[in-house]
Order: sequence, then structure tokens, then C-alpha cells
Amino acid sequence: MATGNPGFESLRPMLAPRSLAVIGASEEPTRIGGRPVQSMIRQGFAGELWPVNPKRDRVQGIPAYPGIDALPGVPDAAVVAVPGALAEQAVEALGRRGCRAAIVFTAGFAELGEEGQAAQESLVATARRHGMRLLGPNCLGLFNAPLGYYPIFTSAFDSGWPLEAPAGRGRVGIASQSGAYGTHLFAAARNRGIATPILITTGNEAEVTLGDAIGHLAGDDGVEVIACYSEGVREGPRFLAALEAARRARKPVVMMKVGRSALGASAARSHTASIAGDDAVTGAVLAEFGVHRARDTEELLDVAYAATPRIYPVRNSLGVVSISGGAGVMISDVAEEQGLPMPPMPEAAQDRLRALVPFSNPANPVDCTAQVFNDMSMVGAFARSMVEDGGYASLIAFFTSVGGSPALAPRLRAELNGVKQDHPDRLWVLSVLASPEGVRDYEADGYLVFPDPSRAVAALAAQGRFGEAFARPPRAPVPLPAVSLPATAPDEAEAKRLLAAAGIAPVPEATAASAEEAVEAARSICFPVVMKLLSPDILHKSEVGGVLLNIADEEAVRAGHATLMANAARNAPGARITGVLVARQVLGAVEVALGITRDPVFGPVAMVGLGGVFIEVLRDVALRRCPVDVAEAEAMIRSLRGFPVLDGARGRPKADIPALARALSALSAFAAAAGERLVSVDLNPVLVLPEGEGAFAADAVIEIG
Amino acid sequence: MATGNPGFESLRPMLAPRSLAVIGASEEPTRIGGRPVQSMIRQGFAGELWPVNPKRDRVQGIPAYPGIDALPGVPDAAVVAVPGALAEQAVEALGRRGCRAAIVFTAGFAELGEEGQAAQESLVATARRHGMRLLGPNCLGLFNAPLGYYPIFTSAFDSGWPLEAPAGRGRVGIASQSGAYGTHLFAAARNRGIATPILITTGNEAEVTLGDAIGHLAGDDGVEVIACYSEGVREGPRFLAALEAARRARKPVVMMKVGRSALGASAARSHTASIAGDDAVTGAVLAEFGVHRARDTEELLDVAYAATPRIYPVRNSLGVVSISGGAGVMISDVAEEQGLPMPPMPEAAQDRLRALVPFSNPANPVDCTAQVFNDMSMVGAFARSMVEDGGYASLIAFFTSVGGSPALAPRLRAELNGVKQDHPDRLWVLSVLASPEGVRDYEADGYLVFPDPSRAVAALAAQGRFGEAFARPPRAPVPLPAVSLPATAPDEAEAKRLLAAAGIAPVPEATAASAEEAVEAARSICFPVVMKLLSPDILHKSEVGGVLLNIADEEAVRAGHATLMANAARNAPGARITGVLVARQVLGAVEVALGITRDPVFGPVAMVGLGGVFIEVLRDVALRRCPVDVAEAEAMIRSLRGFPVLDGARGRPKADIPALARALSALSAFAAAAGERLVSVDLNPVLVLPEGEGAFAADAVIEIG
Repeated sequence: MATGNPGFESLRPMLAPRSLAVIGASEEPTRIGGRPVQSMIRQGFAGELWPVNPKRDRVQGIPAYPGIDALPGVPDAAVVAVPGALAEQAVEALGRRGCRAAIVFTAGFAELGEEGQAAQESLVATARRHGMRLLGPNCLGLFNAPLGYYPIFTSAFDSGWPLEAPAGRGRVGIASQSGAYGTHLFAAARNRGIATPILITTGNEAEVTLGDAIGHLAGDDGVEVIACYSEGVREGPRFLAALEAARRARKPVVMMKVGRSALGASAARSHTASIAGDDAVTGAVLAEFGVHRARDTEELLDVAYAATPRIYPVRNSLGVVSISGGAGVMISDVAEEQGLPMPPMPEAAQDRLRALVPFSNPANPVDCTAQVFNDMSMVGAFARSMVEDGGYASLIAFFTSVGGSPALAPRLRAELNGVKQDHPDRLWVLSVLASPEGVRDYEADGYLVFPDPSRAVAALAAQGRFGEAFARPPRAPVPLPAVSLPATAPDEAEAKRLLAAAGIAPVPEATAASAEEAVEAARSICFPVVMKLLSPDILHKSEVGGVLLNIADEEAVRAGHATLMANAARNAPGARITGVLVARQVLGAVEVALGITRDPVFGPVAMVGLGGVFIEVLRDVALRRCPVDVAEAEAMIRSLRGFPVLDGARGRPKADIPALARALSALSAFAAAAGERLVSVDLNPVLVLPEGEGAFAADAVIEIG
Repeated sequence: MATGNPGFESLRPMLAPRSLAVIGASEEPTRIGGRPVQSMIRQGFAGELWPVNPKRDRVQGIPAYPGIDALPGVPDAAVVAVPGALAEQAVEALGRRGCRAAIVFTAGFAELGEEGQAAQESLVATARRHGMRLLGPNCLGLFNAPLGYYPIFTSAFDSGWPLEAPAGRGRVGIASQSGAYGTHLFAAARNRGIATPILITTGNEAEVTLGDAIGHLAGDDGVEVIACYSEGVREGPRFLAALEAARRARKPVVMMKVGRSALGASAARSHTASIAGDDAVTGAVLAEFGVHRARDTEELLDVAYAATPRIYPVRNSLGVVSISGGAGVMISDVAEEQGLPMPPMPEAAQDRLRALVPFSNPANPVDCTAQVFNDMSMVGAFARSMVEDGGYASLIAFFTSVGGSPALAPRLRAELNGVKQDHPDRLWVLSVLASPEGVRDYEADGYLVFPDPSRAVAALAAQGRFGEAFARPPRAPVPLPAVSLPATAPDEAEAKRLLAAAGIAPVPEATAASAEEAVEAARSICFPVVMKLLSPDILHKSEVGGVLLNIADEEAVRAGHATLMANAARNAPGARITGVLVARQVLGAVEVALGITRDPVFGPVAMVGLGGVFIEVLRDVALRRCPVDVAEAEAMIRSLRGFPVLDGARGRPKADIPALARALSALSAFAAAAGERLVSVDLNPVLVLPEGEGAFAADAVIEIG
């Protein structure tokens, strides 16, 4: 177990110790302190196993020790399975002896509220004092199967142990915040023939977090694919570093992050009692690193399984050969939804195939018809042409129960293998209904087997996205502006000055201290103009009558000034009025909102959405951690469902999308540079003019904490 | 096989004949004419089996006949497996002898284009002349397993025959336009332990259509659930009657209809060469009858499997008991997305459960924690409280590999069975990882078993929707107005008069033949007004400068009239001008579009969508066959993603939704009454005022064919 990623070395004693003490070891193999001992005896733990039990000389047949001080050596790691306050005492005693890692099963900490939280903090402080890493408390433990190392309490092994990987296949490491769900994933993976050598469950995450666990798997040479389950990421920096480490190591990460619905989020809060980042922000972070966010267990396993051949096409495309036109249509539906291209076969190749089977339809999907029953060599000819002439990176061969027919399957297999052996770089799915043994045979030949072709499409599409994420060069750092926030929330004009200095253009405007200054300003800006009250004490100007539109001439400017002053005196009597803002009224622009919020875990987050119904009714926004460069900002804009509005829908001219992307990137850099006092920024609207004419912030609110 | 639905009696000889002739029977069991003979010999066909082969006395060991005239009696049905033109000769000879049903395997008909189409029409004409029903041509056939009746050509039986249903479980009949996919469905269902006694594949559907097949299954007492696969519905009336027959018989219909994407639709066209209705219209028809439209094979099987206990709760709700808080969160996410309510347990019951397991979280999802390992009776106590205190119609018990543990599973099963036996009316899912034998045991106890809880939620939600569809009283007929369409397309004013007579109010308006008449009209209507050119020759007025807005006074009316006339003379020189329309300019309304299109299969279809980006960018529309009553019209409106815009979003007053629903229903009745000459109606915009103030068509275009 070489650890290629130095940042995560510190979990090594916990994952691969030379010796393990079990504090609270039980003679009874199904008890919490008995399961680890039983499992490690059965599976032949490669290190020293030292049960600690004050009442017994032997536990489950091996020598036991009355206390931590009586151990025959310093344990690299220890399971702590003693109740309540004894847990901290055990950690203290282990620390004094020089143990490096504690796996704490004991419950009754932060999951019970304030008092438990205090006990948990004390426990962690004890571990840290001794330089120990601590998993849990209230965790199920972990396993590292190749070492026979099972410091874990679960009944999942009653129906089988982790599998070894078939030759040439990647192994899947599992990191899970939930113990029960983590072992469920392991067992479900085993039932599908997937090797899962390592499982880490993080429980209350008082010290070791999901990020640590993923980071370890990213660096552990015993694992090629990473599957995760999360109820809410509690800690940002190590999580981000881990995802980047996995990306650089070309290890796909597949994650189920629950709590995406209102009901689910509320259930997650009551289950984990954790302060976690916003679900949508977490989703944006996962997308940023090319993590596949799975909707359910089966999708998670599908994608992880399809990652085991370790073929991640950078330019993915799908070719389909089938004996059912219907299946081809169904696959085409899913491929389009998944954004997986299915280009047609070259015309010349189609002509050759039609010459072979006159009524076939060899465009893609390629239906080779029931003719194959008469002449199975057609399958080989069609498949070879798809690979060599079509050049598809991914292929699905739909042969349903033909693939499970004792009479036909061997011929089918021989035909396909002939092609596959010449082209080992392609991702091949067989969609067949075969016995478990039949499936294993096909898998040994190197195929992925999916009974349901729709699920295969989604899993193949994911491999292409992994390939794209792996191929992406590390992002150049976004240059940050110098930002010096004022002591309190700035008024609109000051906010715009701050943002303009960071590269975000406001609508042409000027401040005026008097009615005549306002006339002067309007004259230089060009009519029509907008007039607004300026006050550091008024956040929402329109609510106090502080915004006037469509001011067409100088007389109207004077009248408007008087109106604004009167409205301020009447509706916001205590507010300091610093003047009025006179701004060009921009016509013919698309209104967009840009914003910054601060996520408790991931820090400042940039947001873009179209104005009007798109944000308020459809919640159509794109999010990204700050800062984002211009290319990523443009990708955010293009991901909006309402993007066609900017792109010339409904007979409008195309909007200046590059200018909007520059503004979004600049705003994100501003937020990244501004530090923790920046609570939020709201630019609403930003007016996006036609191509080449720019994007201008018409309003700006900066909140300071 | 009683047939409870008299409209579909005519397929009985084809599905359950006393005698079957196989024209083109082959000695070779894997050939197209050999498979049916082999299968029926093996499975013991309950009727007479008469192979016809001019060259052999015996086929596969049973007596054969040299020709149709030599048969020992009149066959109720016949398989036709002879090539090309011989097929029609066989049908003719069968018809002359009095045979009632032909199952035509022969290919080379409409799927090959025009010439094949002509041959197919001739074939059907021959069958009809003799009063025969005809399946195919180019079909795989059908089976009716309880009779040992297998007139079908497939290799799917190489790995097993259709199953019988476990006691108490419903049986699933399959109707499929695709032969290969139909048998794939059968084989996949068999692999999941689902009984599928009947499969009908319809091939080219020259005579017997998908609607006939579904209708037969709706009336066949050997089937309780109907699973379908469609690439495009070709025939409307029997399809609609079949879905209504299934609904009345309380038989859920689950359908995969492929071709929902652009790519898929194009693949479907090249596969089936059929003129089929619009996919979105077909989707609306399925929704109307409570059909579950499945996205993939697995969802289809999930929903059909979950229908086999035949419990269809009218008021569905979900209770979840688990040993994993994480699984509870995941289930909550899916339940919210599926619209399946998960109300909390009553407070008093929660208190009682907390007294049993102090740190449990018994709201719903109910996490009974790892305590169950110490005391399995907790599972029974928690489950009983959920059923009796919580009153949930559907329940999921998530016990992952505990349910497959040889040590723990028997105790778990005993605890749950204690509750289940007292409450057989609930729909129970066990989400467990167990061996195939373990799954069968749980199923024999009456549970549905799903390894993945997310999929279980979707399948349970579907059962509630079936319950709602079954409970719905048959709709009262919508009264139709008397409609007499003009000979050619009416101008806007005439179109509005026609629609007003049918109950759709236009914006207050009047026509005027001169400038002074226009002034008079504007005065009585109230300013501001809109003025539009009237011409039967101009469909899109705004393109010729034929629409003027914001006309504020009498002088502007006179000027506007001159402008309109000048624009007409310049931009549409040949057009007949019948005057101008003067209409109230309605302010503060929500703009909605209502429309009618004519689907080639299902006839006139009503459409509603919000104006602006909703239709053009987001394609957010609701469709329904005409006519729809007011309640269904309102349901269409409420199903729009943009519905919040009508419902008071963004600080607007709520719009007059009842008035809009009345207008939509009236429009649909108009279309239903208007007959086939009505090509389309476009009311865009309809201006919906605040509650109680009405909805008015501001424009109307009627196309006549």
C-alpha cells in the first residue's frame, strides 16, 4: 500500500497498522467489541491483534490483555469499543503509549446535542494532544481487506467477504459518512461482483472527515475508483484537496450526496445534527472536480462498475449494434438526454453493411436484424465495422437472451471477442440476459454486462465525463484584485466604485449632491436617465420610493430630485442621504442577476441567473466556488436553462456573453480577495447589451459582516 | 380464459384456439417455422397442433399435412411462416376453410417501403374478406403459457419458460410492438420472478394493433397487470378504448413509449417506417388514462412488480423504518420528487417510541438505530406503531444485509410478519440484500423486495397513482357547442365571433370600416386601445405593420387608421382589407397562449402555456385530447412549471385561473365539435386578469383545411 499522495499519509497507521488493540474486546462474536476480533481471526489479519479486556486472559481464543498499559507493545492503531466516558480515558491511555490512530465506535457524543458536543470536543482535544488521528466517534469503523484488517462492527459479512478484482479490473474504495449505508454499498457492490478492498465510515467526523477518507483512497495504490456517500460535507479544504488529488491520480469519484430535497434535507439535519454546506453549493463543487453525483445506489454502482475497465474516453461517442430496433430507439433517447453523441456510421461503411444484410439499417443504432440467427458471423462483421469505420469510443451490443442462450451465446462471444481483442481501447457493454456464471464469463472477456441498456448508456456517458475531467489541465490561478472593504456596508455608488476597481463596469452614472449637479450629470450621461437615492442606511431603495425611471429631460431631473428628497424624508426619516445617483437608462438589454453568497463550508460562491421568472419561479441559477476564470464563468452562463434568451432566442440579437462572463469572473475574484467580512454581493440587474456592446451593473448591494 | 370485455372478444381464437395450423412448419427446431412446433410439443399445447409441410409426413415427430386443404379440421388459428407471396396465398386458403386468426411471421411488407406497403394492404384485404384477425406481418408471434400455446419464434425460452405467479400475486400480460424487445421484457421479468402468462407482439400492425392487444389483456382473466412497449401508436380509437377498459377493470398499465428525444424519434421512424402521433401527445393520452409511462425497462419492471400485490392506495403515503438514518434521508429525497407524502408520526406515538429506544428518531423516516441488534423486538414495536399510529398506506423497511444474515434474518422476518398479518391491506417493501432464495421467502410472505430503496419509492408512488386513476368516476361528457366552420380561414374578427359563440370571451373590441367608425368604437371601448388590420389574407399582422399599440386618444385613432392602410398597401398589396379592429388595451394581465393542433392519431389536442420564455425557450406546455372539462383544464394549467406566475409569484395578484380554465375547456369543446376541417387554433395571447376579472383572447387565428 504505497501512498502516492503525501498530504494524506497520516491515515496510514489507521488503515494499515502493524498492530491493532481492541479496547473493550468481547468474547461474544456478535457484540460490538466482538465482531472486529472475530472478523480478523477469520480473515487472518496480517498484523498483531491485541484484545484488551480486564476480565479475561483470552478473547475468542487468542491472548487478551487487562489494560492498555499491559499491551506487549505500542499499537499502531486501536479500536475503542467501551461505553461513555471510558472512551476518552482509553484514548488518553493509548496516546500516552504512543498509539497513532483511534477508531472510536462509542456513541453518545455530538449526535445527542450540546452536552455530547462538549464531550466530543474533549475527546478530540485528547487525541490531538497526542498527535493521534481519530475516526468517529459513533462510527462503524473501516476495513482493508487485502490485509485481513476488519476494525468494523457489521453483520454484512454474514453473507460474504469483500471480493478480489477480476484480472484487469479496477478496485473500488468506499468512503461513507453513514456506517449502515457504507456497508450496504459494500454488500450491494459484492453482489454485483465489484471488488471493494477498502471501506471507511466516518461517523460523527470529529477529527477524520470524509475529505480525509477520500484523500487516503486517492493516494492508496490498492484502489482505482472511489465511491462515496455523504449527508453533508462538514469540512471544506481537505475535501477539495482530496477531490483534486483523485482527479490528478485519474481515479473517478462517484458520490451519492443525499438531502437534495426539502424533506430530505430536513431528515438529514435531524439525522446528523451537522452544520453542512448548502446542497446546491456542494453539487457545484462536485461538478467542478468532475465527480459524478449519483441519484441512487444503483446509479452509483453502475458508474463505479463501468469505471473498472479504467477506460475514460476524452471524446466519448456511442455506437450501438443490436438485434432489436426497439432497443436502439430506447438507447438513442437516453444518449441524447445524457449528452452522449451517437454520430452515424460513414456512408461507405453503411453501404458495405447493407450489401451484407440487405434489409439492415446500419446508420447507428445498427440493427443487424434476425438474420444473425442464420449467420452469426454477421455480428462480427457489423461490430468490426462499427469499431474500425465508425470509430466509436463506447459500444453497446444489445443481444438480450441470445447472450444467455446455451446454443447461441458461445458463437456470439467468439464473434465479438474477435473484434474486441484487436481493439482493447474501447469501452464495451454487452446488454444481455445471462446467468450469473454467463455474466462472469463475459466480464472475464473484458465486457461490462448490463441487462438494462438504458442504465448502460448513463454509465458510459459518465466515463466520458471522467475522461474530460482528467484531461483538463490544472486551472491557472485567477488573478485577484486588491480589495479593501469599508468598515460598514457601502452605499450603491461606493459599492459600484469598489466593483469597478475590480473590473465590473457599472452603467454610466454619476453622483450628484444637488439638483443642479444632477442636471449636469444627466446632460453628460445622455437622456433618458434613472435617478436613485444614495444612502448607506437604505438597502432596498425602491421600497422607500427611492428609484425614478424614464427621466427624459432637464426639467424632469429637477422635479425628480425634489421627489426623491421628499420620499426620503417621509419614508426613511432617520436615514443619512449622501446625494442622488444619476445613471443612463439602458434599453434593449437582457437582465441578468449576478451574486455572491458565503457558504459555511466552501466560502464565497458566485451565482448567475437570468432576471424575471428564471430565478424567482424556476430557480434557474448556476453556482461555482470563487474565484472562477472567464472560461468557467462562460460555462456557468451556458449551463442555464434560460441561456437561449442570451443566445438570440425569440428574434433578439445575441447578447454580449463574453462581457457577462468577464463580469462574473471579476466578481468572483473580488469575492475571493475580499475576505470573510464580505457577506454577500447582489448585482441585480446586470444589463447585458448586444454582442460587442458590454454588460453593465445597474444596481449593486454589498453586505459586510 | 373468460373475456370480460366484449369489445375485444375477437382476439380469442388467436389467443386461445382449440386448434393451430403451422403453415411452413420445419423439422429443424431452431428455424422460424420450427420453433413454434418445438415449443408447443415441449410445453404440451392444450389444443390440436397441425404442422403443414408439403414435403414431410411428420414434423418433429408429430403428423404433418401437405397443405391447408388437407388439414383434418378447420383450424381456429394458424401461424404463417412461409416466405413472400406464399403468405397471402396461405391466408387466402385459411380464410376459405374458415380459420379465424392468422399470425404472420413473414417479413418483407410495409417495413420495406412502398411496394411492401401494397403487398401488406393486399394481405390485410384478404384476411378481412374472410373475417379473419391478422397479427403482423413481420411479427414474432405471441404466447399464452397456461395453455402451452407458443406460436412464437424466439430463443428466449433457451434459458427458461414463463413462470407461474406466487400465491396471491397478480400476473403480468405483455403487449409489445417490438418482438425482440417484447421477449426481452418477458425474459427480464422471469429473471425477477414475475409471472408473464401472455405475450403479444404486433410487428407491422397491419390489422391487429397495440390497442387490440391491450384491450384483450384488459379483458383476459388470466392477467391482472399490463406491461407495454411502443415505438409509436398508429391507431387511436381502439387504443383509447383499451386503456379505458383496463382502467375500469382495475388493471394497471405500465408502458415504455420510446422516441421521446429527437435522436430517438428519428431512429424510431427509420425502424418502424410508421406514421405515428406526436410523442408529447401520446404522453398526454397515457397520463389521461392513468398509465405509468416508464423511462426504462427496469422502471417498467419495478412498477409492474410492485403492482402484483394488487394494492392500489387511493390516498397513498409512505412510512419508512430503517436501521440507517442515511437511507431514510435518501428515501425522503425521492419521495418528495415523486410527490409521495411522508407525513410525520403522531407526536404521542413518537414519545412512546422514544421511551422504547432513547436515542431513536421516530418522526418519519423512523431510524430505530443499531439497538435492534441487541433487541430485535424493537423492529416489531416500531413497525406496528407506524402501521397503527402512523396509518401509512405504503411502508419501506430498510434493513440492508441484516435481511440476508442467516443469524438475524429469521428474527427480523418473524417480527415484521407479526405486524403484516394483522394489516394485509398495506403495501410493504423490504429493502434488503438477500440471496435469491431469501428474496423468494420474503416474497412468499407478501413483501415486495427491492435492494435499492430509491427504486422502491418510485414504484410505490406509481401504485398510488393507479389507485387514483381507478377511483376516478368515468368523466361526464363535455357538452359540445354547435360549430359551423366557414369555407375558408376567417379573419380575426370572425374567428373571435366563432369562438365567442363557443364561450371564449375576446378582449372588448369592435370592427370599423372607416376612421370615424374606429373613433366611435374606441370611445365606447375606453382608451387606451389597440388597432389591427382586418384581412382574411394576412395571418401574421405584425409582420406587415398591421398592429398598433397604446393608442391614447381620438386623434391617434385617426392617425393610426391612416398608418394601417398605408402599411397594408405597401407591405401586403394584394390583400383584401375588411376594415380595422379596435380593442381595449388590457394592462396588468398575465399573457397565456391557448391552442389547438390536430394529431394524426388522436385528433384535436388542446394546448396551454404561459407566454414569453415559457413556451419559446422552455417548451413548457400542457396537452390533452379534446374535449376537456373545466376541472381537467385547470389541472393542465396547474401542471405548468410556470404556474406560479399565475398563482401570485413575484408579488403579482393571483390571476383568474378559473376563467382561464373555462376558456381552455370551451376551446377544446369547440375543436371537438368543429370536425376534421379544423387544422389549428391559436389564441396568443389570452390576457388573464386578476381573480374574478376574467380571461380574454386578444388575438385569434383559425386555420381551416
